[in-house]
This record gives sequence, C-alpha cells and structure tokens, in this order.
Amino acid sequence: MSNAGANSLKQQDGKSLLKNDHLLNLEVDVLYHLGLDTSSNDLKAMFGDVKYVCMGGTKYRMREFAAYMAVVLEIPQEGKLVNLTKHSQRYAMYKVGPVLSVSHGIGIPSMTVLMQEVIKLMHYAGVKDPEFFRIGTSGGVGIPAGSVVVSSWGLNGVLERTYDLPILGTTRKFPAILDNSLSQELLATASPDDDFEIHSGGTFATDDFYRGQARLDGPFCDYTDADKMTFLKKLSSMGVKNIEMETTAFAAFTGEAGIRSAVVCVTFLDRLLGDQVTTSKSTLLDWQTRPMTVIGRYIVKSYQKTKSK
Amino acid sequence: MSNAGANSLKQQDGKSLLKNDHLLNLEVDVLYHLGLDTSSNDLKAMFGDVKYVCMGGTKYRMREFAAYMAVVLEIPQEGKLVNLTKHSQRYAMYKVGPVLSVSHGIGIPSMTVLMQEVIKLMHYAGVKDPEFFRIGTSGGVGIPAGSVVVSSWGLNGVLERTYDLPILGTTRKFPAILDNSLSQELLATASPDDDFEIHSGGTFATDDFYRGQARLDGPFCDYTDADKMTFLKKLSSMGVKNIEMETTAFAAFTGEAGIRSAVVCVTFLDRLLGDQVTTSKSTLLDWQTRPMTVIGRYIVKSYQKTKSK
Repeated sequence: MSNAGANSLKQQDGKSLLKNDHLLNLEVDVLYHLGLDTSSNDLKAMFGDVKYVCMGGTKYRMREFAAYMAVVLEIPQEGKLVNLTKHSQRYAMYKVGPVLSVSHGIGIPSMTVLMQEVIKLMHYAGVKDPEFFRIGTSGGVGIPAGSVVVSSWGLNGVLERTYDLPILGTTRKFPAILDNSLSQELLATASPDDDFEIHSGGTFATDDFYRGQARLDGPFCDYTDADKMTFLKKLSSMGVKNIEMETTAFAAFTGEAGIRSAVVCVTFLDRLLGDQVTTSKSTLLDWQTRPMTVIGRYIVKSYQKTKSK
Repeated sequence: MSNAGANSLKQQDGKSLLKNDHLLNLEVDVLYHLGLDTSSNDLKAMFGDVKYVCMGGTKYRMREFAAYMAVVLEIPQEGKLVNLTKHSQRYAMYKVGPVLSVSHGIGIPSMTVLMQEVIKLMHYAGVKDPEFFRIGTSGGVGIPAGSVVVSSWGLNGVLERTYDLPILGTTRKFPAILDNSLSQELLATASPDDDFEIHSGGTFATDDFYRGQARLDGPFCDYTDADKMTFLKKLSSMGVKNIEMETTAFAAFTGEAGIRSAVVCVTFLDRLLGDQVTTSKSTLLDWQTRPMTVIGRYIVKSYQKTKSK
C-alpha cells in the first residue's frame, strides 16, 4: 500500500517530488507504463540508492549508457544488463549503482508518460534530491555537426520559453528554464583534448520532425526555402543552438517536481546547411557517445563527492 | 535517385500522396527513422504490393498483428517475421503480403515521425490508394472496459476537432475527421457472436496521459475529483467514446495525403469509474486482439475483392 497511514507526501527532509494529495488515497499505485506497482514490487529495495536518472530516446542508447556508467563508476556487472521494465512492452530501464538509464521514445507525450511515472517511482523509492538528465540527438543551428549542446532553456513551437499543456480543456503554460548551475557544471567538464565543441544555448523543442522543424523534405510542405531560412535564422538570433522534440516539457516537469535537471544533446547536422541526416550510421553512433561522455564525467565527479561525505 | 527525371510527384493515375514539390529536387531521400532510403533500397520491389498500412503503439502488438494477418490471409511465412526497420533503432515494421504492420510508439510526435516517412515510402514504392489503420489501446468514456471504438473524429486538448501544429512559428489547424465510409465498413464486420461491444464515436486525443486526460493519479494535480468528473461528462456529452494520444494527427495527416483511414481502439477501463488500469496483464493482452479482429475481418474481405478484380 503506497501511502497507507501517511497523511502527507513529504519525505523526512520535508520535501516531496509529488504535488498531488489525491495520491494519499491510493492503496496501490500502478506505474502502468513501467510495469511496476507499489504493492508487488519493493521499490525502496529496488531503487532506493538511485541518484542520477538519465533518459534518452532509444533503448539501445540507454543500454549503452548504462554499460558505460558501469565502467566509469567501476561497478562490476554480473551477466547482461536487465531491462527492468520489459514487462510493460513500452520503454526500457537499466540500473547501474546510483544511475537509472531509461528510454523515453520520441517526442514530448512519449517522454512525459515515462517521466511522470519515474518521478513517482523516485518518490516511492524514497530517493532524495535526484538529478535528471536527458541525453539526446538533435539538429544544430549554426554550429558544426557533431557538436554537443547543453540547453539553457526550451522554446516551444510558437517561440515561447514554456511547455503548453491543455488541462481540463484549457491550455496552461509551464516555464521551460533549466537549472543554470547544473548546466555550468556540465560545461565545465569540457577538456582541451576533446574532439568536439560544446555549446550552451536555447533548444527549440517541436512536436513534429518535418514542418514543425521547418524542413523541406517531409510529405507535405507549402513554404519556400527562403521562408525556412528566415525562420531558422530567427531561431539563431534568439539564442537557439539546436532543435529536438523534448526539452520544453523536460524542463517544465522537472521544475514542477523541484528536480535539478539538464539536457545534453549532440547535433547530427547543421540545419542552416540542410535538412537530411546523411552522415554514416557509424559516425552518428560515435557522435552519440559525446553527450554520454559529458554526463558521465559529471556523474563520476558528483558521485565521488557524495561517497566521501 | 528518388525522383530523377520526374517533373511531378503524380503517379500514373494522376494522384499523389505527397504535397511537396521540394522533394523533386532530392537526389536521394533518406527515410531516416525507418533506416531506408531511395538509393540503397529497391522500395518498389520491397513494398510495391502493400495495400493496408496498420500502425499501433508497441512492437509486440504490431508483430502479433502481422502474424495474425499471415494466418487469416493464408500467407505462409518462412521463418520468423523480420523487423524491416531494425537498423533505425526506433520503430518496428513487418510485412505480410499486402499488409504493412508498423509500431509508432506513444503520442502524436512519435507517430507523425513514423507516419510521414511511411507516406513517403508508399509513394516511392508506387502504391496506389493505400488504406491506413491505427490499432490502439485507450480509456473508454461511459462504455464497458474491453469495448472496441471506431473513431469518427479526433478532439484536441482544447476540445476542437482539429490537429494543431505550429509551422514556422504560427499554429495551423488541420481537420481531424475520419473517413465515414471506412468506419461504417469496419462497424459492419461486427458479429452477433462477438464477446465485446463495438461503438462509433469521437476520440479525445491528448498530449499527456495524466493531467491531459483529467487523471487524479499523476505526480502533479491541483484540481478536484468533481472538476475531473465535470470534464469527463462534458466529453461524453460531446460524443466522445474514448481517450488516447494519437487520433487527431492520424486523421489530419491521412486526410492531407488523401488516404482513407480509420482508428480502431479497445478500451482498458471506463474513465467515468476510475483512473488506474488495474485489469490483469493477461486480460489486457486478450482485449488487445479485439481491434485486430475487427481490422483483420475488413482486410480479408477487401483483399479478396481486390484479387477477384
């Protein structure tokens, strides 16, 4: 029974990730898309030591990240990494010591389904002050393909720094600003030996990959190349460094829960130069490890501090 | 070269699924999220005989649907069904004779990425008059759990029958009405022996599973149970029979391409009675086959007509 006997969602430190007293009335909370619940699973035993929640689009990338973190945190793995949410047939979730590595699919709705259930999971597991990261791929705006961008804020489709969600028929706006101190710590992990650039800037988060991102190569398009370039240059002038499909909601929901969070993406192309991703798959897979390197360095350093306390 | 030498996207019958003359300038079109392109793959040979494109959330469901269609269309399979888009690490796509069965993940952005590339794929394969189906799971509104709903239209988060997409910074509205004749043909497949109800009605398509669907069980909620019930009853009074996360965009994009399409979902609960999906996984898996049965019956009948022409 998830909150049996409790009359508050607050943890011992007085904080709570959850802002919903209706949950106090639930005998069992079914985290449906994770295939977990508060009755059948001992969530404190399974997840109580998590500190860093890392999310990204594909199962493969997040399994790779979990394997990478096992190496850099020197946590020996017995056998293959286990997908802890395979039962749900939706997402993939791997755990390596203090790191939870979870796939969220493509786009805001897919990500927020996962993310809201992971926020509840962290609460039920009694995790204090978790930090959330999104490890992504994106299109760059005016920076070389292969660069890494640490997002300062998300910009929605109508060029506002908010995540807009209709609730009970009325659209509500949630601020989409990311934690500046965490961004600075991530940028500070850069090494002069790195073979890639790292940038800080705004991230345009769209609900569509084609017209939503001013592409000319979707099945439908009634604007010109000049219209597209005017729009992309406008984004650039507003401080946008890359384009993907999740940052606004990621910033808004972690903000609402009071969770420190960051978005770190690699860019697969410079949208000022084209629309299509034509770089070879092997190069793209290599570039995909760059945000993992940045976040991995931060986690190793942060985790060592935690342990030495 | 995808359109080399062509000065029009029209097929021999004068129609085109594509409304974008920029595509005539592409030497190669990379369908990035499918892991296919017009240069390395002979798309006409691979997909030229497709007639029915069926999409649904999970890889497992769509593999099951492909296997089911192989049985009912009596198309023997040698070995296991092959995921034709495994290379992309994003979606799963299986082909059985005239049926393409593809997973689209959760939510509109995930689905439209896939769908727009499948529409281009159908064009490059020279497929004439394909029909598109979404096979989904949903929450019901005022009908018994386990019922099947054939959608008449989609309703967006602010209760309009449109799909709203920001393009170049300005929101545009696309009608979200589904093909009435195809819906009627699907409803007509019902048999008195069926152990489930089948309904026709509107589908509320949201961008969020929790507050977006007036649930009380997400991590965040500041409205009351009474607010929720007032909203759900309003949906019911507008003709909404179920709630999911894709119908508006599915209707809009198939409409824009001139494709006949339908959405057939099973309901996993009645939202007027609760928020959580507590029915056993085995019962849910059984219920999930119901939309497959409905669409399967239609395809068998329709395909027999095509062959006898």
